[in-house]
Amino acid sequence: MNAFRRAGLSLGKLPSGPRAAITDVPGVLVGHCTLIEGAGEKAVRTGVTAIVPPGDPYSEPLSAGVFVLHGHGKAVGLWQIQDVGELETPILLTNTLAVFVCAEALLTWTLRCHPEARSINPVVLECNDGRLSAIELRPVREEHALLALEGAKEEVREGCVGAGTGMIAFGYKSGIGTASRVAGPYTVGVLALPNMGRSEDFIAPFPAALSPEEGGEAQGSLIVVLATDAPLLPAQLSRLCRRAALGAARTGAPADTGSGDFFLAFSTSLRFPRGKERIVEELIPDRAPLMGQLYRAAAEATQEAIYSALLAAEPVVGREGRSPPLFRPSR
Amino acid sequence: MNAFRRAGLSLGKLPSGPRAAITDVPGVLVGHCTLIEGAGEKAVRTGVTAIVPPGDPYSEPLSAGVFVLHGHGKAVGLWQIQDVGELETPILLTNTLAVFVCAEALLTWTLRCHPEARSINPVVLECNDGRLSAIELRPVREEHALLALEGAKEEVREGCVGAGTGMIAFGYKSGIGTASRVAGPYTVGVLALPNMGRSEDFIAPFPAALSPEEGGEAQGSLIVVLATDAPLLPAQLSRLCRRAALGAARTGAPADTGSGDFFLAFSTSLRFPRGKERIVEELIPDRAPLMGQLYRAAAEATQEAIYSALLAAEPVVGREGRSPPLFRPSR
Amino acid sequence: MNAFRRAGLSLGKLPSGPRAAITDVPGVLVGHCTLIEGAGEKAVRTGVTAIVPPGDPYSEPLSAGVFVLHGHGKAVGLWQIQDVGELETPILLTNTLAVFVCAEALLTWTLRCHPEARSINPVVLECNDGRLSAIELRPVREEHALLALEGAKEEVREGCVGAGTGMIAFGYKSGIGTASRVAGPYTVGVLALPNMGRSEDFIAPFPAALSPEEGGEAQGSLIVVLATDAPLLPAQLSRLCRRAALGAARTGAPADTGSGDFFLAFSTSLRFPRGKERIVEELIPDRAPLMGQLYRAAAEATQEAIYSALLAAEPVVGREGRSPPLFRPSR
Amino acid sequence: MNAFRRAGLSLGKLPSGPRAAITDVPGVLVGHCTLIEGAGEKAVRTGVTAIVPPGDPYSEPLSAGVFVLHGHGKAVGLWQIQDVGELETPILLTNTLAVFVCAEALLTWTLRCHPEARSINPVVLECNDGRLSAIELRPVREEHALLALEGAKEEVREGCVGAGTGMIAFGYKSGIGTASRVAGPYTVGVLALPNMGRSEDFIAPFPAALSPEEGGEAQGSLIVVLATDAPLLPAQLSRLCRRAALGAARTGAPADTGSGDFFLAFSTSLRFPRGKERIVEELIPDRAPLMGQLYRAAAEATQEAIYSALLAAEPVVGREGRSPPLFRPSR
Repeated sequence: MNAFRRAGLSLGKLPSGPRAAITDVPGVLVGHCTLIEGAGEKAVRTGVTAIVPPGDPYSEPLSAGVFVLHGHGKAVGLWQIQDVGELETPILLTNTLAVFVCAEALLTWTLRCHPEARSINPVVLECNDGRLSAIELRPVREEHALLALEGAKEEVREGCVGAGTGMIAFGYKSGIGTASRVAGPYTVGVLALPNMGRSEDFIAPFPAALSPEEGGEAQGSLIVVLATDAPLLPAQLSRLCRRAALGAARTGAPADTGSGDFFLAFSTSLRFPRGKERIVEELIPDRAPLMGQLYRAAAEATQEAIYSALLAAEPVVGREGRSPPLFRPSR
Repeated sequence: MNAFRRAGLSLGKLPSGPRAAITDVPGVLVGHCTLIEGAGEKAVRTGVTAIVPPGDPYSEPLSAGVFVLHGHGKAVGLWQIQDVGELETPILLTNTLAVFVCAEALLTWTLRCHPEARSINPVVLECNDGRLSAIELRPVREEHALLALEGAKEEVREGCVGAGTGMIAFGYKSGIGTASRVAGPYTVGVLALPNMGRSEDFIAPFPAALSPEEGGEAQGSLIVVLATDAPLLPAQLSRLCRRAALGAARTGAPADTGSGDFFLAFSTSLRFPRGKERIVEELIPDRAPLMGQLYRAAAEATQEAIYSALLAAEPVVGREGRSPPLFRPSR
Repeated sequence: MNAFRRAGLSLGKLPSGPRAAITDVPGVLVGHCTLIEGAGEKAVRTGVTAIVPPGDPYSEPLSAGVFVLHGHGKAVGLWQIQDVGELETPILLTNTLAVFVCAEALLTWTLRCHPEARSINPVVLECNDGRLSAIELRPVREEHALLALEGAKEEVREGCVGAGTGMIAFGYKSGIGTASRVAGPYTVGVLALPNMGRSEDFIAPFPAALSPEEGGEAQGSLIVVLATDAPLLPAQLSRLCRRAALGAARTGAPADTGSGDFFLAFSTSLRFPRGKERIVEELIPDRAPLMGQLYRAAAEATQEAIYSALLAAEPVVGREGRSPPLFRPSR
Repeated sequence: MNAFRRAGLSLGKLPSGPRAAITDVPGVLVGHCTLIEGAGEKAVRTGVTAIVPPGDPYSEPLSAGVFVLHGHGKAVGLWQIQDVGELETPILLTNTLAVFVCAEALLTWTLRCHPEARSINPVVLECNDGRLSAIELRPVREEHALLALEGAKEEVREGCVGAGTGMIAFGYKSGIGTASRVAGPYTVGVLALPNMGRSEDFIAPFPAALSPEEGGEAQGSLIVVLATDAPLLPAQLSRLCRRAALGAARTGAPADTGSGDFFLAFSTSLRFPRGKERIVEELIPDRAPLMGQLYRAAAEATQEAIYSALLAAEPVVGREGRSPPLFRPSR
């Protein structure tokens, strides 16, 4: 269960999956590698988070789509997904200056299993943890990304782990959050990396015990990755992403002018295997009411995952001794 | 003042303009033509709403941008705005089957002042009022649209007038709503036409005296028109529209699968006059913090305008005697 | 056979279909209504062209996609196709100020067969024939559009008929052109309405007997409609449209700054029937080499259709006695 | 002069700049680092090409836009350009598996001058040279990219240098090509990296002395970078890119299904300096006829640059001894 559910909270109309995690979508795994080194000016508080889809994404790419609410971000691999609609590697999350090292790691990872590969589209998303971590030291190395990939499992750790280590949202310590919803026969799972919002933007689910940091930098970002076992086409997954943005809005996420608010969704059940001239697939027409339920599932799970990232966060003393307060119920 | 403010309510962090209306943006006018005819199966409860920008939009087109959250709509004129970024006529709102008659009216309107015109891009947006009105009778005629245009003024009537006559949202009677926000030296004004959401989707600003209609059709739509006197480029106005979608999300707007959720924004101060080879303009770079304030203004004003549409609605007995309940405070 | 083939010409590597027309795609029909009235300042040289897909598009919408090379056009119905990917009416082509009357006609047409319809997305595309026709008189009426629809048949008339009546391209009289290509088991058919290009832009397929009009207005437009019986998804059809733009480029089409260059494609074999929660479809993965052949088919057929429009044109004396020269071989 | 002009050829209606190169746009520089190592299975025939804009792109980002004809590519940095419209680093071109190493080099390059930078958006584009080079060895290192950046100068070497080393197009050896056009007071410069097209796709500018390789892999790519000193907005630069695609089409570029056809344009005269709340700029309205000339300039220069890349190519013996023929006039 995620931190949100462990705190006895609930949200929305649709039922959560049993783990309240993106791994409620069968076969999806999550791993982290956390880097906590040094202190003061040289404090490193960063990491890598891996979301690993089931099967072999390189030989059987998954249907995938994106939505970008504000594009001030350095995400790698999204244009091929936007245009061709296929995810062919795991997804990594990390800090702004580590995306290319992580992309290198995905090349290495893919070439291990597919030494014949000559064209690989790694997917890496990022938030800037430079407020707590000496991001300019570029401490993340390929091996850290590979550790996150290799350690991926069904149980999802939330909070200040992996890419979540240095996150701040709404003036509180943030991190990794996850949630899920069941819509008809399908599950929509979300993993969120919220790093956005001033204190005054926050639409809190309950009164907080501690005051947030006042004001704060406006230009944080938000990354949301969605997985589903519904057989959605790339365009449908892009639309699913837009509803995740609605869920984020309900937490107060402002999509400020310097933010990189990226939403990426993939389907574990619709795949486009290499070397096939034809495939026969079961599709859900857009007009089917089930699509509306899947959209609501995406919004609810995203909203919950963002709250859960805040609730799961633990104290981190970062750069220059900065330690954002924790968001906890006031009672 | 809009109905929301008249009810003593407030929302968000930024100050409202004096009218709490889209007409707080200097020179913007709003007019309505309301059609209430017949009863039972033949009940007509529809109309046209006109948003008239200042000056001569045909000879001096205004910078404009769009965002479409879900594109199941029949909006006219948006592609030229999306690609070229210019608004060259007033904007009309009406029902789904009346958009083309209204577009004809905008041709007539423009040719009156510009008989030399050979290419005109009318802009019309729509929601489906077929639940309360015999939409298939196609009762709107050109003259109704021209009346809305000619009657445009600074004072904005809200509720069940013009295009708002047959609207339903969240199981309550809806209509036209408006609001505004001041951000630095600029104003962002919003006019909303909410026709979306089931009762269970609603994030109400207060407890309601009456229960909403249960369930209801999922596939309503939402139209939001934004005006600003900030000199924003078309791409910046498109991004402003995305923040309006965040504001809509905070009311519970679900962007269901059959919805046409269209957001259109224009600037009254950045224009692209015909026949000029060069213009010199003051621009706001995207990185300027003021952009973040304008984005928040768009979100807050949109959220308020949607609530105000519900609060301003008055009883309408429509098709087959259907009369959605009013959303009013429970005290 | 189209005019291009009748002239003994050929182009490209892929074989043409038997009719060298869009109607080589089984079930697709084309009809025209031509308006030639008056002379001098009041000369009307315009019309409507209808492309009617097989079956009932309203109850079984067809997969469809668009690409807009330059968006200075008044096309109706494209956003729903762009976002939802469904074509639910026939397609009409006409002049710039007649699109909304034609859209009205498509409402009437659809309501005849589907009186229960409350939401209809008509699709109308346009070029500006104001250089030869008194476009500002708005002579096209609903009945003309209905005549084009009702008269649709397999044999495609090219040249100065229907929407082609008042077209000029590259300084020559233009009109309706059509062509087709066979790629594997599938056919790609094209209907083009070229109204663009100065004489110096033209990449002619042979030396011309007559000189073109010099210079000329820059800001003409180009409409290309593609049909295929390949089961392509909306995003694939959008990509097919982009290749049609490549074919147009090979005729010299410049996509000048005032142009509305719109490409629309639909599949007759992939449909999204209303009221179905699931469909099972055979799809062609993007990586399949067959996609490359379909793309080449779209480019070749578009290039040929544009040339054929010029070759099929016959003398038209329009507004103020203007009569553009014909493009014919010099022998 | 580029190889095309040195061969006594010309193309199009607009005049070339004096160098017939992208560096005709004042201040733009180009550098290469070429890697030729080993032979047989381990042959490395690859490199890096740098396009360096004038001034300090990080503190004064340049207006920039993109168009993607087919998105099967691994380009880095494009989404921020697409959404925010700013170029803040030089542009690197390299092979498919070296983009992330090159992106790292751009981080290093930027942090050298701006140690305070915490968010950097490097831009790297790629084609796959795996047919001539052992791409899977990942031989490109950060130092190679830095050498290309540091060696940038006004004189542009074409052909088999830098990223052009391992290119093949239309069955002939390809490489780097460049060209320029003058439109009114402005220059449009192009640097092309053509790696696409089967022999049968080629629209050659003259009969060739040698036959091309037959057939060949379909799925090559094309990269085109455009520079201009016209003060174009990001959306206008995106539209400029679309016309570059028209020019590419005129060489026969097919945009096959596996291709990554990316077009990127920047303006050296419209900049968005950090830390400014306002800027005053001279803009060219879209309706200005000058825009049409700039569009033609982009198309002509792109067509010429692609031909020049073929004409400048010199013999390269690559992987497994493969050595594509040279495209030279038959006389």
